[in-house]
Amino acid sequence: MRFSTSASSMRSSAIRELMSLASKPDIISFSGGMPNNDLLPVQEIDEIYNSLSPAVKKQALQYGPTGGYPPFLESLKGFLKEKGLPVEDNGLIVTTGSMQAISILSKIFIDPGDRVITEYPAFIGAISAFKSFQADFETISLDDDGANIQELENILNSSKPLPKFVYVTPYFHNPAGILYSKQRRQELMQALKGHDVILIEDDAYGELYFDEKDKELTVPIKATGPETVPICYTSSFSKYIGPGLRIGWLLAPNEIIEKCDLAKQSLDACTSTLSQVLAHEFLVQNRLPDYLAKLRKAYKKRSELMLEALDAVMPEGVTWTRPKGGFYIWVTLPEQLNAMDILKKTIDKGAVFVVGNTFDPLGERNNCMRISFCNTPEDKIAHGVELVAESIKSFL
Amino acid sequence: MRFSTSASSMRSSAIRELMSLASKPDIISFSGGMPNNDLLPVQEIDEIYNSLSPAVKKQALQYGPTGGYPPFLESLKGFLKEKGLPVEDNGLIVTTGSMQAISILSKIFIDPGDRVITEYPAFIGAISAFKSFQADFETISLDDDGANIQELENILNSSKPLPKFVYVTPYFHNPAGILYSKQRRQELMQALKGHDVILIEDDAYGELYFDEKDKELTVPIKATGPETVPICYTSSFSKYIGPGLRIGWLLAPNEIIEKCDLAKQSLDACTSTLSQVLAHEFLVQNRLPDYLAKLRKAYKKRSELMLEALDAVMPEGVTWTRPKGGFYIWVTLPEQLNAMDILKKTIDKGAVFVVGNTFDPLGERNNCMRISFCNTPEDKIAHGVELVAESIKSFL
Repeated sequence: MRFSTSASSMRSSAIRELMSLASKPDIISFSGGMPNNDLLPVQEIDEIYNSLSPAVKKQALQYGPTGGYPPFLESLKGFLKEKGLPVEDNGLIVTTGSMQAISILSKIFIDPGDRVITEYPAFIGAISAFKSFQADFETISLDDDGANIQELENILNSSKPLPKFVYVTPYFHNPAGILYSKQRRQELMQALKGHDVILIEDDAYGELYFDEKDKELTVPIKATGPETVPICYTSSFSKYIGPGLRIGWLLAPNEIIEKCDLAKQSLDACTSTLSQVLAHEFLVQNRLPDYLAKLRKAYKKRSELMLEALDAVMPEGVTWTRPKGGFYIWVTLPEQLNAMDILKKTIDKGAVFVVGNTFDPLGERNNCMRISFCNTPEDKIAHGVELVAESIKSFL
Repeated sequence: MRFSTSASSMRSSAIRELMSLASKPDIISFSGGMPNNDLLPVQEIDEIYNSLSPAVKKQALQYGPTGGYPPFLESLKGFLKEKGLPVEDNGLIVTTGSMQAISILSKIFIDPGDRVITEYPAFIGAISAFKSFQADFETISLDDDGANIQELENILNSSKPLPKFVYVTPYFHNPAGILYSKQRRQELMQALKGHDVILIEDDAYGELYFDEKDKELTVPIKATGPETVPICYTSSFSKYIGPGLRIGWLLAPNEIIEKCDLAKQSLDACTSTLSQVLAHEFLVQNRLPDYLAKLRKAYKKRSELMLEALDAVMPEGVTWTRPKGGFYIWVTLPEQLNAMDILKKTIDKGAVFVVGNTFDPLGERNNCMRISFCNTPEDKIAHGVELVAESIKSFL
């Protein structure tokens, strides 16, 4: 019996290992990247389901066009237009999570050995998608204002063939938790100008700002221009309405969307029509604003509890980001510490997080960790952070 | 602006063109490959949705494990076990339609230039999936009892490197409508014995037999053994409960499923949990038997109407299959006719079907056509067939 697989099928099983670690009963989990169960819009979805006509319910069980259920494409365009996005001059495709959007772009554009520039740290799903099509990586570092543009320019101006993509997540970064400053965004687009690369702007958390004053910084780069290189804008409802629906999308130049549509035909034919019908109604029944307001308040509270705990118990030499939205805090340990050692000790003590190494496309650096507050009950956060701090102290 | 795409992204837009042709208003469509809208289980899904507890509704909106929502994996195993499938000795993964199962297998196993053996005609989705990973094709012809085994042996025994897959759809074939005989199945497995290939057994329609006496021929090859080569068994609920849910699965040797799980992580993370919850309840509430009985009766009736019409109006020299289940009849025209000419004329007259060329991986043959009865109102079938016959006669 032979299983000689294609070269592109080699993958690390890091995600699975971490998921199994994180699922021990009673453990305080800072490892999740999903909305808190108690915040999911069960009542809203109930009301929406029961408002559907029999004809629409039939459509929900039927195939839809590969590019998306047409009424949802329309309401989604409205939602994106409100964010200032250029929906008229671009194509839009509904994907099975934004994960699929990144995966399709990889399938279309990446040949083995092609390079991709990502931030370090970077979203593990995107790393996996690029890797599964055998991309090579260059990384640029992050500070509180965004990616290091000098490092980006150095890569773009080197003598090697240009990378295919620059992949960034400017809004409440996963895992770093940061929000790009206005200036950094402008510098990014300036640096890309004249280079033959595509920018993937991944925006899964932008609606989850904690304070109204930060809203203006969540307006997508693709909405503010100038589009000095083609921008593929990916987003999803996974962090807002619920990941179980698997609703994501890609807004990109028409000729890219046409290729994505063809690729998606042979990947899964179309995204769940039922999910698209529910997402469409969420939008047209105007349920998103109130629901998002509730989420912002809840995640802000959890974030504050976590920051208070970190301020109170973390030893000197440990630093962390102070998120203005989203799900995550990124903790940097003193250079000599290894996050995997600390993870093991922390699991023994009864808490879990994700080691920074997971988010390193190069797989080299491991003195950081992602602690997420999105899915942890409020009354567990302080104690969980104490357990992490105790583990760190035991290595100092 | 550059869009230098990867070599694997080249695709024909034949499907899209045909879909747009088929969607003209008032046209009698024999082109659909989906369940009839009026047969979709809207009431059953309503009752199921309203029977869900709040806790399950939360789960339905949440991420699930990549391999599948655990309760559904269990109930699905029960369903497959009843068909005699070896669920204990194999791995099972839920996929976003069986389309995704075929696509993932292609991603894992096919390197550019690898060969795949399919029947001619063959399911266009599978052709697309193999092509999108740059497979080359060999085809084996079909008769009423299944694939031509001598042709298969000739390919397997040639001096070229072995193909990666042999792909067959033995049960109410799409598009050919045929059902493999017991003997042909045995000959198939005998021919494969000792060769280092994987058999993909695609079973999307097997439950839709028109007569109880044919049920025994729908027991999967994977259920009856001996498994002389590894068998990857793909199936879905798209033709039973509804394609809008995007629920498919793959039952295959454990080491293949492990690779599929890793690949799926970077494709769409998981299949819609909501869809899996509904499919699970469809099974555990034991709703499938009655519902399938209703479908069998309805599609049998449509098939009879279509066969009656064909018998009545088709000119001499035209032949067709007589399906014992499923959705499709495969019509073979006299050699000198071209199905595309006839399609154009038929559309002018007010009906539409799919040209046989669409189902030819080699893209060469075009004197056949698929006419489907699944999605055509009963009272339109006879007239539609008349229009097709008139078009054919005009070329004789």
